[in-house]
Amino acid sequence: MITLKGAEVSAKIKEQTAEMLKQCGGRIPKLAIVRVGENPDDLSYERGAVKKMAAFGLSAEVYAYPADIGDEAFKAEFQKINGDPEVDGILLLRPLPKQIHEREIERMIDPEKDLDGISPENIAKVFAGDSSGYAPCTAEAVVETLKAFEIPISGKRAVIVGRSMVVGKPLSMLLLKENATVTICHTRTVNLRETCRNAEILVAAAGRAKMLDKESVGKDAVVIDVGINVDENGKLCGDVDFETLEGTASMATPVPGGIGAVTTAVLAKHLVMAAARKG
Amino acid sequence: MITLKGAEVSAKIKEQTAEMLKQCGGRIPKLAIVRVGENPDDLSYERGAVKKMAAFGLSAEVYAYPADIGDEAFKAEFQKINGDPEVDGILLLRPLPKQIHEREIERMIDPEKDLDGISPENIAKVFAGDSSGYAPCTAEAVVETLKAFEIPISGKRAVIVGRSMVVGKPLSMLLLKENATVTICHTRTVNLRETCRNAEILVAAAGRAKMLDKESVGKDAVVIDVGINVDENGKLCGDVDFETLEGTASMATPVPGGIGAVTTAVLAKHLVMAAARKG
Repeated sequence: MITLKGAEVSAKIKEQTAEMLKQCGGRIPKLAIVRVGENPDDLSYERGAVKKMAAFGLSAEVYAYPADIGDEAFKAEFQKINGDPEVDGILLLRPLPKQIHEREIERMIDPEKDLDGISPENIAKVFAGDSSGYAPCTAEAVVETLKAFEIPISGKRAVIVGRSMVVGKPLSMLLLKENATVTICHTRTVNLRETCRNAEILVAAAGRAKMLDKESVGKDAVVIDVGINVDENGKLCGDVDFETLEGTASMATPVPGGIGAVTTAVLAKHLVMAAARKG
Repeated sequence: MITLKGAEVSAKIKEQTAEMLKQCGGRIPKLAIVRVGENPDDLSYERGAVKKMAAFGLSAEVYAYPADIGDEAFKAEFQKINGDPEVDGILLLRPLPKQIHEREIERMIDPEKDLDGISPENIAKVFAGDSSGYAPCTAEAVVETLKAFEIPISGKRAVIVGRSMVVGKPLSMLLLKENATVTICHTRTVNLRETCRNAEILVAAAGRAKMLDKESVGKDAVVIDVGINVDENGKLCGDVDFETLEGTASMATPVPGGIGAVTTAVLAKHLVMAAARKG
């Protein structure tokens, strides 16, 4: 079985962004990372994003607010960042605390700065197969990974486990655009294993540690693991029990070292795209 | 095999709308049907919609423009209808002629009047499983039909043939919301028959006359035919060769007399919802 390393995909994306960066006329694109509270998942993603922007020669600034900031106060702060001409793109760490109306932020964010595809404009574009917008980075990272390793998508049976707005749903549209036959599974799917075993490309994006193992993987399938979980020993792990796949899957992404690294690379690419479009 | 008649579903929807209509304070909700040119498909849908609104005690006015109307002139006309307080909802017959920037109209339409779910706002809501917006009427008609005949959806394998923005894609989201395991097939699907035969609920929405027959239908499957085509004898037909299904499918919608009648009923329901929300 071939291990599909995220670092290799990230390196390819870095080459592409370096090319695009030339269109920014020497200006260094700036990412605003907006965080409310100190959620460990947010902090971990933030660290990864900051590191990746630096590695790609891009700038990132963290705008952190206390967990109990009020809805109006947060919106006022957000609007400032949103309107700041120095800010080329925004990553809003979510979910936000309950007192903040996340839906209204989604409508407020400038679609041109909405690098993680949370605005209705960008969602509608993903739905329409219009690549002029920004898809959620994690969903796009899956497609970038398949393409980087030259894994054929067209005509293939792709099965996605998970139906979130961040991965499952947008990914179904991105894979459809690549002409895959797409099946979306979830907690209510009857006979999940059998459905998964039928996949030529299996994407695990359910957010449950090691919920899939070799029994759910067809012979020679490509397995993409989007999950980031902590196992019973406190160790980072994916939705797939990677160790069991040898002899079944033809290729698989590990966790860590897989899709996570690609996701922040896609974020960097989106940032450079946004900056280049501004000219 | 049971024939699932659209008229029965339409009658149920009529009861629901009559109930909602009471919230409109005696005012009769008004639909604006906007048509450019004289496309026979448009005219046929228009006739059906006008008739249905009348049958439901609602008002409809057709705003027709010549096929060669300019982009700016059309937008000016559209904006008038869009802003008219007398108009509760709009049905825009599409596709529009090439000189008109359809995308810009989608962004222009007031989401509150966008009864057929073409605005980014409503598309994003369908995607998010948020039922406060308007889904494309045809997609919703499929779900309404399943529900009207008390066909279980949760946990079922639903296969949709076709990936249009009007049916396939939004319907995949609506069926996901109902907890179906959803597969989307299309022209590039390898082994379409086999995939279709695996469906417990099969939705044909490809727009190709009689492209599916009993060989593509599993034992006891429920078949929903969204296609409206003309066969080699000039007769109206669906995407499914209905006559061949006896002994295979457990239930199926005919064409004509199936989903078409439900689609305009959903349009009427959306119109009353829009009017009731305005108060």
